[in-house]
Amino acid sequence: MASENRTSGLVIDYRNATATAVGEEHGVSATDLDDIAPKVADEHARIGQEHDSGVQKWQDLPDNTELADEIVTFAGDVRDRFSDFILIGIGGSSLGAIATIGALGHPFRNLLPPDQREGPRFFVLDNPDPEKVAATLETVNLESTLVNVVSKSGQTAETAANFLVVRDALHRAVGPDKARDQIVATTDPAEGLLRQLSDQEGYRTFPVPPGVDGRQTVLSAVGLLPAAIAGVDVHGMLAGAAAMRERATSSDVRENPAYLLAALSVLADTKHHKPMLVTMPYADALYGIADWFRQLWAESLGKKLSVNGSVVNAGQTPIKALGAIDQHSQIQLYTEGPNDKLIQLIAVGGYRDTVAIPDPPGSMPELGYFTGGELGQLLDRERLATSWALTGAQRPNLTITTPSIDAFALGEFFYLLQLQTVMAGALYDVNPFGQPGVEAGKNATYALMGRSGYEALKAELLTEPENARAYINDA
Amino acid sequence: MASENRTSGLVIDYRNATATAVGEEHGVSATDLDDIAPKVADEHARIGQEHDSGVQKWQDLPDNTELADEIVTFAGDVRDRFSDFILIGIGGSSLGAIATIGALGHPFRNLLPPDQREGPRFFVLDNPDPEKVAATLETVNLESTLVNVVSKSGQTAETAANFLVVRDALHRAVGPDKARDQIVATTDPAEGLLRQLSDQEGYRTFPVPPGVDGRQTVLSAVGLLPAAIAGVDVHGMLAGAAAMRERATSSDVRENPAYLLAALSVLADTKHHKPMLVTMPYADALYGIADWFRQLWAESLGKKLSVNGSVVNAGQTPIKALGAIDQHSQIQLYTEGPNDKLIQLIAVGGYRDTVAIPDPPGSMPELGYFTGGELGQLLDRERLATSWALTGAQRPNLTITTPSIDAFALGEFFYLLQLQTVMAGALYDVNPFGQPGVEAGKNATYALMGRSGYEALKAELLTEPENARAYINDA
Repeated sequence: MASENRTSGLVIDYRNATATAVGEEHGVSATDLDDIAPKVADEHARIGQEHDSGVQKWQDLPDNTELADEIVTFAGDVRDRFSDFILIGIGGSSLGAIATIGALGHPFRNLLPPDQREGPRFFVLDNPDPEKVAATLETVNLESTLVNVVSKSGQTAETAANFLVVRDALHRAVGPDKARDQIVATTDPAEGLLRQLSDQEGYRTFPVPPGVDGRQTVLSAVGLLPAAIAGVDVHGMLAGAAAMRERATSSDVRENPAYLLAALSVLADTKHHKPMLVTMPYADALYGIADWFRQLWAESLGKKLSVNGSVVNAGQTPIKALGAIDQHSQIQLYTEGPNDKLIQLIAVGGYRDTVAIPDPPGSMPELGYFTGGELGQLLDRERLATSWALTGAQRPNLTITTPSIDAFALGEFFYLLQLQTVMAGALYDVNPFGQPGVEAGKNATYALMGRSGYEALKAELLTEPENARAYINDA
Repeated sequence: MASENRTSGLVIDYRNATATAVGEEHGVSATDLDDIAPKVADEHARIGQEHDSGVQKWQDLPDNTELADEIVTFAGDVRDRFSDFILIGIGGSSLGAIATIGALGHPFRNLLPPDQREGPRFFVLDNPDPEKVAATLETVNLESTLVNVVSKSGQTAETAANFLVVRDALHRAVGPDKARDQIVATTDPAEGLLRQLSDQEGYRTFPVPPGVDGRQTVLSAVGLLPAAIAGVDVHGMLAGAAAMRERATSSDVRENPAYLLAALSVLADTKHHKPMLVTMPYADALYGIADWFRQLWAESLGKKLSVNGSVVNAGQTPIKALGAIDQHSQIQLYTEGPNDKLIQLIAVGGYRDTVAIPDPPGSMPELGYFTGGELGQLLDRERLATSWALTGAQRPNLTITTPSIDAFALGEFFYLLQLQTVMAGALYDVNPFGQPGVEAGKNATYALMGRSGYEALKAELLTEPENARAYINDA
């Protein structure tokens, strides 16, 4: 089906999150939803006004098909010229691309021969881990490596350090002149260190959209450029996001899928003592979405202060899980431990492969139930069985089903979960943008690294704590 | 240093988890530790008695150097004969090997040319995900693939299904006679479906040790065989585990590192409202340990009933995180959100690579603090800065430092965290063995797959819930 004519296909089933299914103490009641409905409608109006005044610019990203055209052209130009691609970025600057390529690329795309692989091999340098960085530089062919450094400011310590290392390695391998053609920077269009360096050295650049937090950039060049280079249909992603935007326009908490999910999560946390929100796809390919969402949810909602300045210490802790694997790791706890989680399962209507389960040997009648079975069917039935078992133990859970795993569906997910998060922030009365809580740690890193201006903090950091005996050391 | 003469080198610093550092409400006080000390000593004695009567057999695994010899011989025999290795197992049957090979193997070992790679490429089929399974079968060379199927009973649905698929693929590729020499089963030495099939078809087998839960098998053939095939020094792992066992013999909560960690975690949960335990290594290589520990902690402690049969719904939720990446994802929430976590950081004394940060261009004085710096130093200082910032926000945290990442240190970690978990179970008054909470879901899967004897359950499962309107579907 052409993306243009396709409508949103995600289905949300929240029956097992209701009081009817898991009891009044743990489930959301019709009264809960009635009570929160006016607040949802008010915040819907406020968010709309914010959008009109330029605050919620992430909502406009699906319209940027011209940028997508430009990216597709660039990707088409570089994909066959380079054997390897390194994305240098951390947090919002890499999680979206990792989720996208993880969902839509071949699971072992770096192992495929070049003619079967769509585009260069894909590496990410997010952590400044010397072992990972050294191994990456050993593994790639620097002479045919394209580097995409992603940082709005250029000041993010991890990205700046990793980029200095890779840039130097490129300079040594191919010389500074050739190196500049192997570097593309995604950064602020007007200002910042990386912008300045890019202009100075002549790198090709793509914009980090102004007025959008890092964790909302998956549908901008930040997420789309690496995706396109890896062969992803980025227009399809934007179309899926636009379709979800179109679907999620109602101010009614029961009609708007994003608002419904937000209300269910926040009500679970604030009225039914569920401080944790587990996202558990039943597909290896979608695990990256759970990880991407984990950042979005934590940074957006984890706030000390409300919009009015009172101390609220808000935020539900997001947890990523993977079905069926975590049935053998976490479900024991989720079923029998404290009843303190809302679990959102992600189901897949149709997997992209069908793998029949061969008949078991006649000597194994205990496995006779596999006869005529198929792996995707087993995996999906395990998901249904887990939902049923959780419900039986009064553990609230809901299921988001995607009919397929493709670029369009991924775009739907990204938009849905972003709008869910913005509404959740509104329901917590916190500002979902910004991350003021990480400043102290950043400053302490600067101090420990000896950055000038941070001398007093450094002295404080190096003072031995009083209770130095709380230390077990065999040496 | 020869493993035999090496002693445990892990250092535990819990100063930032104490009341002195983060206040009485959130930190463990000296009185807390005094109060729990007699219980710890009693449980120490009880665990010792259980060991003498054969219940805590996992404690003996480090002594099985003969098994390690046998594994090393087998691995030496097969490593050069096979280009690919597929581990088929889920949960405790694969997480230990994934953690070990993830920590000690080259980060891109599957991409290395055969002469630089130690042993065959390593693939895991844990999930019965048709996309992952199909991609794996497309990617490996079945004519030179060794398959290790790991299941105590042979009845684990995911493993049985994946094994039937791979076995059939091998039969088609090389014929049944040759296939049997490409399959090695790790299973119960005496009984069960996989034992029966192995005897019938003539597979080489290694034992899943009787009397040991799946999540405690990393130091048995379950974990050691794949590790050895990937080139890991399995004797070193056992020596590290034995060294930790020797170090962790005191009944004193302040002297025994495993008991100290257990007491800090359980006190944090039960006395200081910290229902979550975050494990956050500052090394990509150690992320697998956090994932392995996540299963151990959740399945062992997440229990509905106490040993006396009363309903307790115990268990702290384990969360895996990765430094410094999650500073750009979770630290905002950990610092400003609800104060409901104990965070255990894992520090590395010396990384295996040193990567100098090149001097930044003169036009970027803001990055001047990198001058003379090194990536491992940056990463470790970020860890220290994060610990300091968390403490400043009264968020309790502790740090386990390993002097190095090697087989010995890994063995130490595995033993330490297992003993910590067993003692935590004792402090919660729950049985840390078994996983009764997953039976309902298993039975429901059998019912949905049409297994005979489960007809009534199937009918119940297929009954539409009453509140079917709680459903958002555009279709």
